[in-house]
Amino acid sequence: MKSKDLRRTGMEMRQKLLGEDGQKALEKLQKHNPKIARWAVENLFGEVYGNEVLDLRTRSLCTVSALIALGNEGPLTNHMRAALRIGITREELGEVIAQMVWYAGLPAAIRAINILDRLPGE
Amino acid sequence: MKSKDLRRTGMEMRQKLLGEDGQKALEKLQKHNPKIARWAVENLFGEVYGNEVLDLRTRSLCTVSALIALGNEGPLTNHMRAALRIGITREELGEVIAQMVWYAGLPAAIRAINILDRLPGE
Amino acid sequence: MKSKDLRRTGMEMRQKLLGEDGQKALEKLQKHNPKIARWAVENLFGEVYGNEVLDLRTRSLCTVSALIALGNEGPLTNHMRAALRIGITREELGEVIAQMVWYAGLPAAIRAINILDRLPGE
Amino acid sequence: MKSKDLRRTGMEMRQKLLGEDGQKALEKLQKHNPKIARWAVENLFGEVYGNEVLDLRTRSLCTVSALIALGNEGPLTNHMRAALRIGITREELGEVIAQMVWYAGLPAAIRAINILDRLPGE
Amino acid sequence: MKSKDLRRTGMEMRQKLLGEDGQKALEKLQKHNPKIARWAVENLFGEVYGNEVLDLRTRSLCTVSALIALGNEGPLTNHMRAALRIGITREELGEVIAQMVWYAGLPAAIRAINILDRLPGE
Amino acid sequence: MKSKDLRRTGMEMRQKLLGEDGQKALEKLQKHNPKIARWAVENLFGEVYGNEVLDLRTRSLCTVSALIALGNEGPLTNHMRAALRIGITREELGEVIAQMVWYAGLPAAIRAINILDRLPGE
Repeated sequence: MKSKDLRRTGMEMRQKLLGEDGQKALEKLQKHNPKIARWAVENLFGEVYGNEVLDLRTRSLCTVSALIALGNEGPLTNHMRAALRIGITREELGEVIAQMVWYAGLPAAIRAINILDRLPGE
Repeated sequence: MKSKDLRRTGMEMRQKLLGEDGQKALEKLQKHNPKIARWAVENLFGEVYGNEVLDLRTRSLCTVSALIALGNEGPLTNHMRAALRIGITREELGEVIAQMVWYAGLPAAIRAINILDRLPGE
Repeated sequence: MKSKDLRRTGMEMRQKLLGEDGQKALEKLQKHNPKIARWAVENLFGEVYGNEVLDLRTRSLCTVSALIALGNEGPLTNHMRAALRIGITREELGEVIAQMVWYAGLPAAIRAINILDRLPGE
Repeated sequence: MKSKDLRRTGMEMRQKLLGEDGQKALEKLQKHNPKIARWAVENLFGEVYGNEVLDLRTRSLCTVSALIALGNEGPLTNHMRAALRIGITREELGEVIAQMVWYAGLPAAIRAINILDRLPGE
Repeated sequence: MKSKDLRRTGMEMRQKLLGEDGQKALEKLQKHNPKIARWAVENLFGEVYGNEVLDLRTRSLCTVSALIALGNEGPLTNHMRAALRIGITREELGEVIAQMVWYAGLPAAIRAINILDRLPGE
Repeated sequence: MKSKDLRRTGMEMRQKLLGEDGQKALEKLQKHNPKIARWAVENLFGEVYGNEVLDLRTRSLCTVSALIALGNEGPLTNHMRAALRIGITREELGEVIAQMVWYAGLPAAIRAINILDRLPGE
């Protein structure tokens, strides 16, 4: 795929997953570090999330799992919000968190529960 | 669910995911630390993997993602082998690894590729 | 031990270590993820902390050591407060932190000092 | 070198890198954990930063790289500020951050960009 | 304490904890990086392990806990061997490992069990 | 820069840093995961290492620092070998390792010393 097409696909995937907040974050990133912004759009969102070998639901839960293990609160919040946005339920996220107790430990899981609890939604 | 039923479900899930190797590992664990062995069977494999809120494919890829991020080679090998055993393809695992480049870094992803490369299969 | 007894032991140990704050945290956990709440009470606090092979002082300092290494600020705060609650002195905590400089690095140790400094006490 | 000389060199290096804020942090550390304070001054700043096998610019960027990988926000902020203080440019820090995308992952790099963005300076 | 005394205390503590193997490791370290060798003897083993605010048993179990969380296999092996050498039992180590399941995750705990299983002893 | 040029620059930088071994590793990566191989050549080695805002010596030591902190032995070995290849001395690497004692802990630093000790060279 050409760079222009990757960019378009990447922007669409970002919109689908991260919504308006992701747009603002991208503009900021673009201003401060355009190289990283390009990688995030074309390579991560275009080539990875935009690739249909795995469906978006699975990709979203894999990212949430890795971020629970890595323990970086900001991106974990954004990606749990993204999961809810694409239709993953709170019950499903709760199951991934319960699974992560065993790989990443109880404190990492409880942090994820607290983040999920603060996210708006029905 | 009663403890006896959790144990049966857990043993079935372990067999499905980890096969005979998992059985031997469990016997060793049972001998050295029966409490942890019980948690692994009843709580992790019985209550988590045996729970149908998420399908086994999704759970397997979430575990692989977390283990790539955590970087513990033995369990990552076991769970990539488990993924292949339940029908996840090498192409799908390769996509999860490509996704993890962006969350866990390139060295962590390359380790996973090397492990996958050494796993037997068509 | 039966589940009912583990639950009672676990609740007692939680009260001893985490006090009223731990009670509120548990209620929240119970509401959002009852499975994890049960594991935390019965398995971690009942079977582990309630087990007398190791005394509570030693267990508490081991948990503090691991949490300094893992760097998760919320649980580290709770478990340093728990250490003070069961009679471990600030001087003793300071020694564990000095020991952790060498295993987890200076920034992780200084974070623990700052947390300890903010904890109320004589 | 004698302890007295290491102390003087260490204090000078701390002043050069961490400025007045570092002085206040040291006084607090000295009060709460004099042993760690001595190590930080004499061993880390005296023997390491004060040692001319590597120039200060290189040392500063190595510390920033390690702290991006370790993900501890407070010390990362202090050491990115230190880098600016000794004349490393925002463009150079941005390049180190772009390099760290590949070793520590995108979320760790974006955290560093956000910290850098909040640091005062022309 | 003077540097000469710290050195003597440190060497004694190293001998007590790490035995002959520790002696060989130290000689190698001394040859390759004398500064780090001095810190390891005088500061870590002399000032920390040689300090009686905490007894050696407690210090040993804290180190084992942190190393299970950090996942560095070589030092974890050395410090579990050290724990056995100073009279901590396999049952006690097994309890610390069970406790660490909840903070560092099951894979980290199972690695520790496998290491303990390979250590010689009655 | 166009993709073709990034590729050429990236291949040159890889050759300079990783030599023949890096060439073989790349062929393997290309076969198993061409997307990651392209990122490694064009984005990491082409856009990052090939970018002259920072000189190669500094970049190399930053990567070594991050890999000591992250604790992944294979890539750390490759990048310490790369550092020697581009003319960084063993004494300079020893200084970076001594610096990392304070950020990543003593066990992480000793692992790096052991790796460096096994690397061939005068």
